[in-house]
Amino acid sequence: MSNGLIISISGPSGVGKGTIIAKLREMIPDFGQSISVTSRDPRGQEKDGVEYYFRSKEEFEKLIAEGEIIEYDVYVGNYYGTPLSPLLTMSGKGQDVLLDLTVAGSLALKEKFEETVTIFLLPPSLKELRSRLIGRGTESEELVDKRMAQAKKEIENAPEFDYVVTNDTVEQAAGEIAAIVAAEHARFVRRSKEVDSLLSE
Amino acid sequence: MSNGLIISISGPSGVGKGTIIAKLREMIPDFGQSISVTSRDPRGQEKDGVEYYFRSKEEFEKLIAEGEIIEYDVYVGNYYGTPLSPLLTMSGKGQDVLLDLTVAGSLALKEKFEETVTIFLLPPSLKELRSRLIGRGTESEELVDKRMAQAKKEIENAPEFDYVVTNDTVEQAAGEIAAIVAAEHARFVRRSKEVDSLLSE
Repeated sequence: MSNGLIISISGPSGVGKGTIIAKLREMIPDFGQSISVTSRDPRGQEKDGVEYYFRSKEEFEKLIAEGEIIEYDVYVGNYYGTPLSPLLTMSGKGQDVLLDLTVAGSLALKEKFEETVTIFLLPPSLKELRSRLIGRGTESEELVDKRMAQAKKEIENAPEFDYVVTNDTVEQAAGEIAAIVAAEHARFVRRSKEVDSLLSE
Repeated sequence: MSNGLIISISGPSGVGKGTIIAKLREMIPDFGQSISVTSRDPRGQEKDGVEYYFRSKEEFEKLIAEGEIIEYDVYVGNYYGTPLSPLLTMSGKGQDVLLDLTVAGSLALKEKFEETVTIFLLPPSLKELRSRLIGRGTESEELVDKRMAQAKKEIENAPEFDYVVTNDTVEQAAGEIAAIVAAEHARFVRRSKEVDSLLSE
């Protein structure tokens, strides 16, 4: 059995990443999912390692220092982050893992774990991205301008990614990503054991 | 517009390459096809550049010497070969080209043109390959043994290929190759112009 793939998807705000990832999980239900680490306290029935990995602030900061946190954010005074080692464990068991990361997060993960398959989601055009951001109806013109400037900066990082998928429609983009997953499984480097076992018959 | 892909498929005799390629051409009808060069004379209505490129023996030998022939064979005293430059022309026009080459031919093409996407077709097992060869009913046991020895030698070259696809069923193998084609189109190196044009909007 060969290792599972670690696939990370990034793209500018408004590109439709969440919808595409939801569609992909529907198409390929056995993708593994990353569980975040947080420094907030568990609520109600929440269990460690199910909804979140619950760690103290000090423990979280130690994980950051150890390079174990791919990316993190601070929200209402608490840390929320994506830990590396559970991904490597899932991959080691032959499980493919699909990750929703920021552009910086994907690049950080690729640096830590070179075999990561990184996919950049592109809008059909900047004009279309702007009209999607306006269409949300929740953001002021000033905020839309700010997001557009941020989007351009992020798109400049596309050359660091393995693949670029344009989100013309959800079905087409999710279909292309599913094709990338199938193709990556067929790379010789991931099938060398099958070749060896065939030759040793 | 970016260049078309040059995809070459190889595998041991009996692996089912012809059937899979036929299936692929049915699934993706706009694949370009390589036209062979031959030193035999045109027959009936055959036209140069349609059924074959017709060249004299001396011209063919010159093409070999110039490195223009990817692979060739001699049949009833005449040369038959796969020329390189028409593939590069088709690719330059944005057309994907699908090639059926020997293992040695794929490796030679990859050396001449590094961007070639090379796919090795593997039987599900050597036992299965043997029974497919026997199933043809046209080959003596001695010839089957010879082909099996040849198959093992060829499979040892699989590590030189980009992808390895196991032919469990025609549909699955053709589907995996179609996924490889879609994924290769999504590689950043082939989409860099789209990213540039988006940024220059």
